[in-house]
Amino acid sequence: MSKFKRVELSVLDAGDVVPCCPPITAGELSQADAEKTAAMFKALSDPVRLRLFSRIASHAGGEACVCDISDVGVSQPTVSHHLRKLREAGLLTSERRGTWVYYRVAPSVVAAMAAMLAPRT
Amino acid sequence: MSKFKRVELSVLDAGDVVPCCPPITAGELSQADAEKTAAMFKALSDPVRLRLFSRIASHAGGEACVCDISDVGVSQPTVSHHLRKLREAGLLTSERRGTWVYYRVAPSVVAAMAAMLAPRT
Repeated sequence: MSKFKRVELSVLDAGDVVPCCPPITAGELSQADAEKTAAMFKALSDPVRLRLFSRIASHAGGEACVCDISDVGVSQPTVSHHLRKLREAGLLTSERRGTWVYYRVAPSVVAAMAAMLAPRT
Repeated sequence: MSKFKRVELSVLDAGDVVPCCPPITAGELSQADAEKTAAMFKALSDPVRLRLFSRIASHAGGEACVCDISDVGVSQPTVSHHLRKLREAGLLTSERRGTWVYYRVAPSVVAAMAAMLAPRT
């Protein structure tokens, strides 16, 4: 449990992505907000990364072991590279349990991205 | 007016991005959907592009002349390049009126991106 908390904190410290940025319809983004936001969108700008992300997001319990999601037609090191990029962008958290690492979508970060693109009300 | 319609159609024909893809929590994305979606996120993965996009999205009437949005610290050809990328991804439409080209956010495409990231209900 303490290990899980440590991972969570390291993600928040590293990326500082929650909360991020105002809706794009609210005004011009500052340079700093534009850089943070671009990094989050960049994490989703690769087809293999998106398929891995959708596998985790749609997996039972919202969590998937790396052993569940690796057959996307690329090598294991490539899978690990993509999962690391998603984690660095703050979109996934991870926890090692025994042999395997389990990944979970960070709902607040993904919701913040959705809110940025939400239509003007 | 006929010029405007032609631009609209060419965007839809080129990108075929409306409607796009199911929510990422709904299941694993197909390869085809992942490629379409990744291209849309890629269009927003550059800080300058995001700032231009937020300027247009937040401009009065949801439309901006290229003359209104060019002072983002990069050259005019670079601005044109970024606007073209956004248009090719289906996120902007454009219309020439007299000397200037006017850009407008494509609300259905941006709403589709937001819906893809919306939390599981």
